[in-house]
Amino acid sequence: MLKSINPLLNADVLYALRAMGHGDELVLCDGNFPADSVARQTVLGRVLRIDGVGTQEAARAILSVMPLDGAVETPVQRMEIMGQPDEIPPVQTELQAEIDRAEGKHWPMGSIERFAFYEAARKAYCVIATSERRFYGCFLLKKGVIAPEA
Amino acid sequence: MLKSINPLLNADVLYALRAMGHGDELVLCDGNFPADSVARQTVLGRVLRIDGVGTQEAARAILSVMPLDGAVETPVQRMEIMGQPDEIPPVQTELQAEIDRAEGKHWPMGSIERFAFYEAARKAYCVIATSERRFYGCFLLKKGVIAPEA
Repeated sequence: MLKSINPLLNADVLYALRAMGHGDELVLCDGNFPADSVARQTVLGRVLRIDGVGTQEAARAILSVMPLDGAVETPVQRMEIMGQPDEIPPVQTELQAEIDRAEGKHWPMGSIERFAFYEAARKAYCVIATSERRFYGCFLLKKGVIAPEA
Repeated sequence: MLKSINPLLNADVLYALRAMGHGDELVLCDGNFPADSVARQTVLGRVLRIDGVGTQEAARAILSVMPLDGAVETPVQRMEIMGQPDEIPPVQTELQAEIDRAEGKHWPMGSIERFAFYEAARKAYCVIATSERRFYGCFLLKKGVIAPEA
């Protein structure tokens, strides 16, 4: 483990988060998402795992180091519930709370229809699978920048 | 880049630092050290680089996240100058200052004779080469632990 770094960020995940640049996207997904098959088509080419925790804890760890992209309106996209695109289940409100906590302001998520989400996911940099049991714990997060010190 | 993590810690270096456990050692070396040939015999099996800076800046970045091993008297060993084993050149006093700064106390380095250092280096987890130009900018650092939160 390392000083000041959330221990849920294992070596493979830390590698990927650091290797990503501005505009690269990661998929944070639940236990039912086809993580391995989608991940094989991503830039990294293999699935990453934050096991033993759900969406909220994994997101808190990721967002403790990864800035979101301020160059777009909605750097985080949630997967829409089929037939109920405007309904936001608790697993998604929890993710919204982690975004707001990490960024210090309310920054609403966007949303993507399920099959469009799969398409977008294959173009991501990587897929990080959690142990989330609840449905629709699936998100796309676009990485932002760290400004030079003043 | 990532929030709160020194940008000198590139993806490969972060991976290695996180993958190391208690008692694993890393070699921090100058530009003349046989980094690639030694690294091929280490656990990781390939050389890592923090380019563009010398020993002090690289050490500061590494020690910002890596705890030193409190279970041994001297978790950091410097390479001794041939024929002058007790002389500590500025590149080594600078490393000592970075140890003391990171750990919040004076924690003196040990030392190893040059050829014994090469032997020990081959048994390390990894080798991180810097752009340090001064001779004897070569050190072995043993990783410690992060205690559970109280």
